[in-house]
Amino acid sequence: MAVYTDITEDELAAFLSDYDVGTLTAYKGIAEGVENSNFLLHTTVARYILTLYEKRVDPADLPFFLGLMQHLADRGLSCPLPIARRDGGHLGVLSGRPAALISFLEGVWLRKPEAEHCRQVGAALAAMHLAGEGFALKRANALSVSGWRPLWNNSAARADEVQAGLKDEIAAELDALERNWPVGLPEGVCHADLFPDNVFFLGDTLSGLIDFYFACNDILAYDVSVCLNAWCFEKDGAFNLTKGRALLAGYTAVRPLSAGEAQALPLLARGSALRFFLTRLYDWLMTPAGALVVKKDPLEYLRKLRFHRAVSNAAEYGLETA
Amino acid sequence: MAVYTDITEDELAAFLSDYDVGTLTAYKGIAEGVENSNFLLHTTVARYILTLYEKRVDPADLPFFLGLMQHLADRGLSCPLPIARRDGGHLGVLSGRPAALISFLEGVWLRKPEAEHCRQVGAALAAMHLAGEGFALKRANALSVSGWRPLWNNSAARADEVQAGLKDEIAAELDALERNWPVGLPEGVCHADLFPDNVFFLGDTLSGLIDFYFACNDILAYDVSVCLNAWCFEKDGAFNLTKGRALLAGYTAVRPLSAGEAQALPLLARGSALRFFLTRLYDWLMTPAGALVVKKDPLEYLRKLRFHRAVSNAAEYGLETA
Repeated sequence: MAVYTDITEDELAAFLSDYDVGTLTAYKGIAEGVENSNFLLHTTVARYILTLYEKRVDPADLPFFLGLMQHLADRGLSCPLPIARRDGGHLGVLSGRPAALISFLEGVWLRKPEAEHCRQVGAALAAMHLAGEGFALKRANALSVSGWRPLWNNSAARADEVQAGLKDEIAAELDALERNWPVGLPEGVCHADLFPDNVFFLGDTLSGLIDFYFACNDILAYDVSVCLNAWCFEKDGAFNLTKGRALLAGYTAVRPLSAGEAQALPLLARGSALRFFLTRLYDWLMTPAGALVVKKDPLEYLRKLRFHRAVSNAAEYGLETA
Repeated sequence: MAVYTDITEDELAAFLSDYDVGTLTAYKGIAEGVENSNFLLHTTVARYILTLYEKRVDPADLPFFLGLMQHLADRGLSCPLPIARRDGGHLGVLSGRPAALISFLEGVWLRKPEAEHCRQVGAALAAMHLAGEGFALKRANALSVSGWRPLWNNSAARADEVQAGLKDEIAAELDALERNWPVGLPEGVCHADLFPDNVFFLGDTLSGLIDFYFACNDILAYDVSVCLNAWCFEKDGAFNLTKGRALLAGYTAVRPLSAGEAQALPLLARGSALRFFLTRLYDWLMTPAGALVVKKDPLEYLRKLRFHRAVSNAAEYGLETA
C-alpha cells in the first residue's frame, strides 16, 4: 500500500498530451497496489487509473499484461482497458518509468467476502480462462514450480528466524512438489493473483477483475488453487468448506474440471500456498525496517500449506463430481 | 501519506445508510493526508471524500473544523463542504473513529508552484480571513508561541542528534520569540497549514482550499508568514523574492496589511518556521523506524528560520508599501 513515485503537474500534463482524454481535473495517489504506483485521474471526459510500473515489473512483460487486458475485454470479460495514445501505443514514460493509462472500473473489493461472492469469483475465473484462449503472446510463470527453489535459496538460511524447524519442513515440501508436480494438465492464461483486492463488486454482484500483473501461462487448475487459498480460508486459519464448495461450483459451471485436474488439486494447492509463502518469507526477511509497505505474514501460508498436505482429494475442498 | 484505518464494506454500508447520497460504486484509500485516513468515494450521485479522524485529532475540535468549512463555503469560499446526515448532523462513527463525509473538490495540488500561483494563494488566504469573520466557534492555536516550549521540551535533550549545536540555537530562538512575540495585531480564523498540498488548481486557476484541521484563531499575519514559508522557498533553500512579492501582492489586494502587521512579519515568519521545525523534529525523533509515514526533514525549517532571523523588514519578502 504505497505510492512510490509522485509526479509533478508538468510531467503529467506532458504525458497526457499524448492522449485524447480531455482536461485533467484531479489526480490522487491511491493507497493500493503493492508493486506499482497508482493514481486516480479525473478529467473532463472520464475517470482513469494511471499506473507507473516500478522496478519489480519487467518492462518486457508490459505488452503481455496490457495486450491481455485488451484481449479479455474484447471477449466480454469486465476488466480495465488500456487507453490508446494518439499514436496507437499503450505505453508512455512518466518520471522515468513506463506508465499506462487504464480505464477506471467501478466497484468495491470485499474485505469480508461470503460464499456467494466466492461462487461468482469461481465463475469469473473460469470465464477468464476461456476468454484467454487465442491470446497470441506468452509469458512463463516465473513463480511456478521451477521458480520456487531459486526463491527459497535466498531465504533458506534465515528461515528458522521466522519459526524453528521451518528450514527442514520447507526443504522437504519443495522436494516433494518438484518430484510430483503434475504434467499434461490443461494450460492457458492464468491470473495467478486473484485475491479479494483484485475482484470488484457492485453491491453483491461481481463487476470485474483487475491487476493482471502476475498473469502468465500455466496450469489452469493451479489458478483455481490460488483462489482456494485466497478466498476460502478464515482469518483463524480454518478452511471454509461452504466457500470452497461455492467457488468450485461457480468455476465448474463455466468450465468443468477434468478428473485429472480434480485429482491434482490438493497438490496444486500445496504449490500455490508455497508460492505465496516463499514471496512473503523473502519480503519478510529482506524488507528494510523503515520501508513504506505492510509486510504480510508468511506463516499464514505455512498453515494453509499444512492444511493442503492433509487433503487427500478435491471433494474435501467441496468439489462435487458428477 | 497513509491510510491508517481500512474499512469493511459492511461498516461502510452501515455508515452511508445515515446519508442520502445514493449507492456506493467505488471507494479507494488515498495516499494523502498525514493525520487522518481518507477515502475517495464514488456513488451513483456524486464523489465524496470520507475522512476518519485518527488519534492526533481531538474529537472536541471537529465541530469547529466542520462548522468552519460550512461557514466559509456559505460565504463563497471554495472549500469542501461537510455532507449532512439525514438527522442533520455532520459527524458519524466508522471503525470506532469519528468520521465525516465531505464534498469532493476538483483540482490538482501543484508540486512546482510558480509566482502566479503564489499570487492566487495570497488572495485566497486573504479571502478566507475575511470570510472567517463572524464564525461563532473559537479554537486556540495549540501550535502558536505558548505551545512551542512544551513541544521543545520533548525534543531538546536529543536535538543535537540531528545537528550539533541545535539545542543551544533553538533554546535561544525560543527565548527571543517568547520575549518579542507581538501583541495587539488583528486576529481571526487562520488556516495555519496552507501548504501546496492543501491548495487545488484547475489548470492555472486556483479552485479551492482544503484540510482545515489545523485551523484556529490566531494573528492573521502569522497565517501569511506560514504561506511565505510554505510557498516562497526553493528546494535548495533560497527565498524566491518574485514568489514572495506575488504572494504578498495577492494578499494585500484583498486584505491590506497594516503597518504593524508588516513590521511584525519577519518575527512572525521566524515563529512559523520554528513551529514547523519543532513538529518535524519531534516526529523525526519519535517516529518508530517501521512506521508508514514519510518523515519530513526538520532542517529545512531550520534553514528558513535562519533566513528570517536576518530579515529586517517586510520589503525583503517583497511587500510593497504604498
